[in-house]
Amino acid sequence: MRLLMNPQLNPATERGWRRRMFNIIYRHDTRISRNFDLILIYVVLASVLVVILDSVNSLHAKFRIALYIIEWFFTLLFTVEYAIRLMVIRRPLRYALSIWGIIDLVSILPTYLSVLLPGAQHLLVVRVLRILRVFRILKLTQYMEESNQLVSALWRSRRKIFIFISVVMTLVVIFGAVMHLVEGPEHGFANIPTSMYWAIVTMATVGYGDIAPQTTLGRMISSLLILIGYSIIAVPTGIYTAELAKSLRQSCLDTPALIHDNRGCPECGLEGHESDAKFCRNCGHPLPEAVK
Amino acid sequence: MRLLMNPQLNPATERGWRRRMFNIIYRHDTRISRNFDLILIYVVLASVLVVILDSVNSLHAKFRIALYIIEWFFTLLFTVEYAIRLMVIRRPLRYALSIWGIIDLVSILPTYLSVLLPGAQHLLVVRVLRILRVFRILKLTQYMEESNQLVSALWRSRRKIFIFISVVMTLVVIFGAVMHLVEGPEHGFANIPTSMYWAIVTMATVGYGDIAPQTTLGRMISSLLILIGYSIIAVPTGIYTAELAKSLRQSCLDTPALIHDNRGCPECGLEGHESDAKFCRNCGHPLPEAVK
Amino acid sequence: MRLLMNPQLNPATERGWRRRMFNIIYRHDTRISRNFDLILIYVVLASVLVVILDSVNSLHAKFRIALYIIEWFFTLLFTVEYAIRLMVIRRPLRYALSIWGIIDLVSILPTYLSVLLPGAQHLLVVRVLRILRVFRILKLTQYMEESNQLVSALWRSRRKIFIFISVVMTLVVIFGAVMHLVEGPEHGFANIPTSMYWAIVTMATVGYGDIAPQTTLGRMISSLLILIGYSIIAVPTGIYTAELAKSLRQSCLDTPALIHDNRGCPECGLEGHESDAKFCRNCGHPLPEAVK
Amino acid sequence: MRLLMNPQLNPATERGWRRRMFNIIYRHDTRISRNFDLILIYVVLASVLVVILDSVNSLHAKFRIALYIIEWFFTLLFTVEYAIRLMVIRRPLRYALSIWGIIDLVSILPTYLSVLLPGAQHLLVVRVLRILRVFRILKLTQYMEESNQLVSALWRSRRKIFIFISVVMTLVVIFGAVMHLVEGPEHGFANIPTSMYWAIVTMATVGYGDIAPQTTLGRMISSLLILIGYSIIAVPTGIYTAELAKSLRQSCLDTPALIHDNRGCPECGLEGHESDAKFCRNCGHPLPEAVK
Repeated sequence: MRLLMNPQLNPATERGWRRRMFNIIYRHDTRISRNFDLILIYVVLASVLVVILDSVNSLHAKFRIALYIIEWFFTLLFTVEYAIRLMVIRRPLRYALSIWGIIDLVSILPTYLSVLLPGAQHLLVVRVLRILRVFRILKLTQYMEESNQLVSALWRSRRKIFIFISVVMTLVVIFGAVMHLVEGPEHGFANIPTSMYWAIVTMATVGYGDIAPQTTLGRMISSLLILIGYSIIAVPTGIYTAELAKSLRQSCLDTPALIHDNRGCPECGLEGHESDAKFCRNCGHPLPEAVK
Repeated sequence: MRLLMNPQLNPATERGWRRRMFNIIYRHDTRISRNFDLILIYVVLASVLVVILDSVNSLHAKFRIALYIIEWFFTLLFTVEYAIRLMVIRRPLRYALSIWGIIDLVSILPTYLSVLLPGAQHLLVVRVLRILRVFRILKLTQYMEESNQLVSALWRSRRKIFIFISVVMTLVVIFGAVMHLVEGPEHGFANIPTSMYWAIVTMATVGYGDIAPQTTLGRMISSLLILIGYSIIAVPTGIYTAELAKSLRQSCLDTPALIHDNRGCPECGLEGHESDAKFCRNCGHPLPEAVK
Repeated sequence: MRLLMNPQLNPATERGWRRRMFNIIYRHDTRISRNFDLILIYVVLASVLVVILDSVNSLHAKFRIALYIIEWFFTLLFTVEYAIRLMVIRRPLRYALSIWGIIDLVSILPTYLSVLLPGAQHLLVVRVLRILRVFRILKLTQYMEESNQLVSALWRSRRKIFIFISVVMTLVVIFGAVMHLVEGPEHGFANIPTSMYWAIVTMATVGYGDIAPQTTLGRMISSLLILIGYSIIAVPTGIYTAELAKSLRQSCLDTPALIHDNRGCPECGLEGHESDAKFCRNCGHPLPEAVK
Repeated sequence: MRLLMNPQLNPATERGWRRRMFNIIYRHDTRISRNFDLILIYVVLASVLVVILDSVNSLHAKFRIALYIIEWFFTLLFTVEYAIRLMVIRRPLRYALSIWGIIDLVSILPTYLSVLLPGAQHLLVVRVLRILRVFRILKLTQYMEESNQLVSALWRSRRKIFIFISVVMTLVVIFGAVMHLVEGPEHGFANIPTSMYWAIVTMATVGYGDIAPQTTLGRMISSLLILIGYSIIAVPTGIYTAELAKSLRQSCLDTPALIHDNRGCPECGLEGHESDAKFCRNCGHPLPEAVK
């Protein structure tokens, strides 16, 4: 939310093609700009798909040249888009230094770098970050309100989740160190960082099994850690649900306002009439017009 | 819910055995049609069990012929049922093209195909989809309301869950691409799709361990992904619980209806006055005495 | 709860030692019977511990004779207890055929059987079921109410959880069958039951990794199953929380009844007075006595 | 919370440097003492980082002497801090025997012991427990209230979680014993404790896969255990959310206080009248006009 700057048109170019491009690229409320946004999403998804497919050896061997051309095509397309974005905005530098501007730049650089440094095109994967634009566009659709609910509940939970992660990390350090002593390098707990990785994998119930306790004492300590993790896995859920419940409660207190308005009866002064009431329910006197 | 068409009897055959069969097969509110539904569930379960058992090598070797006969028996039974369903309904084509009609057809075809194409009977597993009929029948029992609650809460959560899955997939693409670069093919992260599979397995805390990070940097990134997954695992729960809470709240808003009484205004007929109202809030006409 | 019979004293022995033993063994509300219950818990835990330790090879080799003697000691102790239980109760057969009676019998039989059939003492592990007695005793402590809350919420959720498990099992059958076709026996998906085991392990996010998909298509289907599992893992939590919320709501609806009573003011007829009100809050007229 | 003693200044030294040191070390409400707390956190984190890095073989080989010196530096620093803490407090013994005092002592001892017993410095890992001090300091920041909410909800849930863990442990013992019989040592279920470890790993959905069932019966029993675990994983979440909901409900009961105004009856002094009350509901005396 905060990452979104409120772009302004370059005043020197408030007419002509620049104005039209600005309206298409930066606004999201007209039909044409929405279509541009939708096309952009598909193009970004397609370009990411190309990077993903290019990483598969068999496909890379077969379609090497085709994929190479498509990669350059998308890169040029995004370069043109980036250039236009810079041209039509009032403060190009501010855009270039914003999160979105940096993502846009980083999405095209690797292809150019790959001319000088063979292999640099592997960095193209950062282009996937442009997918995040999808969420910027979602703001204007019917998903907006619901997306906001989810994000704002997470945002209000941030301190509680930070405390929770701190407790988890403390447990991870302590159990990691203890397991390094108990199991030792011969069972895969080579050093404390590795043991901490094992502790995170265990507490979060991922459990790869690439490192697993093999001594009886180690298994007892693991069981303890697992039970602790199992008991506190409820905490983030509880935090998040509590935040949503708080919203709910706030709506609860707000809801009566939708039903009852604040018109007082001119005759007996009774307040709290339903919004469709035309007469006071206490004395029958006509009520003033309800104002929404 | 939407998948269920409301079947109508063929008007040309509103009497005789076709009517009786229609009542048995398509209706679910008489004793005989309920018994038919129950028998159908058991037959479907039995036929699926045969397919499952037939896939076990040792059983296939021993009871090859018996299983073959049973398979044909069930296929013929379902064929007869399918034919009757087509005959007694008013619009056979509409049934044949509905979801249930297609499932019914696909449940019998593989056995016939296996005469021409040896091996096609393996496709019989799709017959398991007929189990879904169980839920259609559940609609008529005491499980109906509770099933509806669960489904409608999921249905109302669909947009939020779509957003959530989008965020998860974005993380999966980004972390998949990064881990492909960091760990590389020599540690199992052969290409980006494989790394994305690993990221899904990790974020959902499944953690097979068939692919696991082995470099220090890879393990740090994995730990980060695991902690992110651990923190947002609460989100679907929060969404779902919030939807159920919304239902709860709606019941809460309905509760005032208990306070509202059923007196109709003798003048304008408006109902739903508050219990302390003496005059109609719509036309100002005196209300009859409220009776509890 | 239902498993607990309400034991009655043998009327022919309402006096003497049998009455005393009955009070000690079957009642839980005097100090001596509570002490008996507590001692029983410790003895059961100790005897289970012996069975557990005896299963460890190194301990079995070292303390073979000691463990053997302790096992027989506990068996004889439980035999005496079982005999007394039968003697002092009015309907011994009813006790013997109740869940608890069968558990008590099965906890001592294996040791006697091991005289005839060497190896039968391994069945002694069923003795662990006597631990469940712990929960019977908990009923009488401060844990009773909270235990009831947890159990009754689970009990009221039983239908929803049955529906949920049915959906999960349907998915397990379908995905198990599909993965058997896609991956085949060469990747561990030997037959449909094995594939179903894999699907359960995957959906519940356990993920042992003893069987894991290795083809690209198999991994895509697995990812789909994992995402489905990840999305619906919230359902049991939602069901359970909703049941607890329903209790909460019930308390909510009860609460106003405590505050407002139904007395109407004899002067102005206003209702909804707080229960401690002595005068009408609208006209100041004395109110009739409040009836609880 | 209970672990925190309320430290008092040594009365014999209420002036001079001891008083100043006491204010810096033991109080947390002045700017200088807060800075001390913050520096302490960073120093503790740095010293733990050194212990973690020292456990990595490659780093230990390279920076052996540097790490050795830093370790001694931190140890001496903490020794000085420990000495000052003892000197400036009124009851040094009470501090030395408190949880924090013991943690402080144990954080410095291993380095000294390593002079006599080579290898003892490995025990330095216990120093990580000093991180817990972080939470003590958090109490004074804006995180205090939220931390309290989380802790008190967990504290009020303690009995329910104890019951839950007991049920889980009973299932673990029973399923562990059964799987030991079914799978036997040849598939890794070497004895009952190992099988119990497997059962915990399975129920908590960790699933390392170091031990996994391989017989058909064993896999069926595992599937059952997994489904049980999957069904009751909601219980801790439900417990925790219910506790948070109880807090919420308490706030709900407080809400009517918003409707009740603060007018006191001029006659009997009763407060908490409903906002539309014109007369005291206790004595019938007219109330002053309600002010919103």
